Amino acid sequence: MAIKFRITKKSKSSHARVGVIETEHGVINTPAFVPVGTQATVKGITVEQLKNIGSESLLCNTYHLYLRPGDKIVKKMGGLHKFMNWDRPIWTDSGGFQVFSLGAALEHGVGKIASIFPGHKDLGETERVIKEKFARVTEDGVEFKSHLDGSQHFFTPEKSMGIQNNLGADIIFAFDECTSPMHDIKYTQESMDRTHRWAKRSLASHKNSRQALFGIVQGGAYKDLRETSAKFIGNMDFSGFGIGGSLGKPKRDMYNVLEWSIPHLPEEKPRHLLGIGSPEDILKCVKMGVDTFDCVMPTRLGRNGSALVARGRLDVRLSKHLKDKNPIDKKCGCYTCQNYSRAYLCHLFRAHEMLGPILMTMHNLYFMENLLKKIRESI
Amino acid sequence: MAIKFRITKKSKSSHARVGVIETEHGVINTPAFVPVGTQATVKGITVEQLKNIGSESLLCNTYHLYLRPGDKIVKKMGGLHKFMNWDRPIWTDSGGFQVFSLGAALEHGVGKIASIFPGHKDLGETERVIKEKFARVTEDGVEFKSHLDGSQHFFTPEKSMGIQNNLGADIIFAFDECTSPMHDIKYTQESMDRTHRWAKRSLASHKNSRQALFGIVQGGAYKDLRETSAKFIGNMDFSGFGIGGSLGKPKRDMYNVLEWSIPHLPEEKPRHLLGIGSPEDILKCVKMGVDTFDCVMPTRLGRNGSALVARGRLDVRLSKHLKDKNPIDKKCGCYTCQNYSRAYLCHLFRAHEMLGPILMTMHNLYFMENLLKKIRESI
Repeated sequence: MAIKFRITKKSKSSHARVGVIETEHGVINTPAFVPVGTQATVKGITVEQLKNIGSESLLCNTYHLYLRPGDKIVKKMGGLHKFMNWDRPIWTDSGGFQVFSLGAALEHGVGKIASIFPGHKDLGETERVIKEKFARVTEDGVEFKSHLDGSQHFFTPEKSMGIQNNLGADIIFAFDECTSPMHDIKYTQESMDRTHRWAKRSLASHKNSRQALFGIVQGGAYKDLRETSAKFIGNMDFSGFGIGGSLGKPKRDMYNVLEWSIPHLPEEKPRHLLGIGSPEDILKCVKMGVDTFDCVMPTRLGRNGSALVARGRLDVRLSKHLKDKNPIDKKCGCYTCQNYSRAYLCHLFRAHEMLGPILMTMHNLYFMENLLKKIRESI
Repeated sequence: MAIKFRITKKSKSSHARVGVIETEHGVINTPAFVPVGTQATVKGITVEQLKNIGSESLLCNTYHLYLRPGDKIVKKMGGLHKFMNWDRPIWTDSGGFQVFSLGAALEHGVGKIASIFPGHKDLGETERVIKEKFARVTEDGVEFKSHLDGSQHFFTPEKSMGIQNNLGADIIFAFDECTSPMHDIKYTQESMDRTHRWAKRSLASHKNSRQALFGIVQGGAYKDLRETSAKFIGNMDFSGFGIGGSLGKPKRDMYNVLEWSIPHLPEEKPRHLLGIGSPEDILKCVKMGVDTFDCVMPTRLGRNGSALVARGRLDVRLSKHLKDKNPIDKKCGCYTCQNYSRAYLCHLFRAHEMLGPILMTMHNLYFMENLLKKIRESI
């Protein structure tokens, strides 16, 4: 077992629990928020700054690192930890989300597109690429074109495991297909059954016993399917479980999905909610029994000038902050709030200075770290 | 006297000297390289990172801060030190360089244009603005249009002092006109005489005795004029002296300018060479008696992927570095070289990640800091 998970406390009023995931690279206190470092870097900040914020782990994207610099190069450089100089736990996703982002999502046009075209500033180019609908799912895996250069690639469960073995994260995920909210029950079931077969193949081909493999529950926003999937995946020999795929369009659907899935997952293993979420989402989902979360929201919002605050968000770019001596939040203990005024942050964004996104990323990640700390203490 | 300058050692083989500039915000060991933080931030790095690199002071640009966020806002926020959270010495230039960059330089097309249009990504727009030739010099001062919004502004010596008093740097500069290498001796002399009259007006209108005011020697690449200017400015009651303006097109001219100027400047006051320079320039100019230097070169090169190394420059973006486990320089003690491979830096630049420019800026500033330290030790 590459990780150990201990539950140290359970809530009496909800399904929330406090725990510790122990890995070779240190512990993750749960419930935890996992910052995303898509391309082997949390955008704009050093690993020292991330440690000072208190982040205990981070998640990198398999699809992106496979395309650039390539998982073989990362392996040659000593693995992700050494490559990016992060000696704490790392997670990698399966790359399966790209089936959704580059395949089905393109057919149905349900967004998420911008987030996977970070290099494309030219929207015309993005649209052209999108129109080619360049991902295709088969029983064996998924064929897709690189968003970087249009080259053809084929991911299978075995390939995803091989890439993730090369990257060398502490916690990795089985290869799955992430359906769209636009898919009907028939397609969603076919896809779920295929994901279950892919889960077996992922488990069978996972070669590195130092890495913990998590299975992923799918099944769209359909109760029967989610229950079936949670039971099926939950009975397999995974070290933990991700809840992924279409979490429904209205928020209510996401909570339903958790209600349908979590009771069928083994109590003693950690549960990760993929790609979620906002502070509000996290508060609710912890109560439903989720242990860990990853999301680009805090870092992306920060880069765009929005600070997370107790009451919601504060846009430091607004002219009302030009002469405001106050920090983002007087009560916040982060580096940014301890040292800089809203006026300075406002200036940095208006002057297109890199330090603006950097300081805001630090604030937002600290906000999340602090939120999760409070949640752990409150359970 | 807002600063004290002590010479602690003089070279026997050259005009080089080791010294200490003492300010209210700490000391600057000379010879020193002063990093440039144009818009109240050294692009991409925090003040803590800058301190860890060892930088003892930094220089901000009066013209840019006057336009954005405005010197009155900076004053209201407690001055530059507080605004940008830098408690060590700060320098501001006079804004006079913009007379060159936005005025004469436009007429003669001698470059430096790109550097003052950081916000313009659209070259067509930049060219259009340039064609309007929007700076005009009169006896009273210089009229110019903002490169941000085209608004009309007028700088005089009194205005420059007022702005610099508001910004509150430890060391500030008299308002000067910076001539172009294309100007003939007649215009260069007229301009120099005007700069001398502006020097008197700057001295007379400087209102903050806690700030040290430096005069600026002009006179183009003409021996008689440089000698005249160095004597004239050198005899005035400034706390130190800048050598500015056209430092000639061939490097040889710059060394001539220093040979003609420095002997006429008082021995006991510090000498700053404005906007210079490369490691090679600094090595030579220290021997000619220059104490301090500011230049955007190390930070700009770093942001563009070029690392300063003993033998010159190393472009980390090149494909030959894709699998290179070595740091930029095995002997370098900087944060970047201690923790990251060329392969990782190469990846960051190819993936358009902010951390690339950040880590390279840190290396290049450390390189300069270390170079100047070695120079001080060698004198």
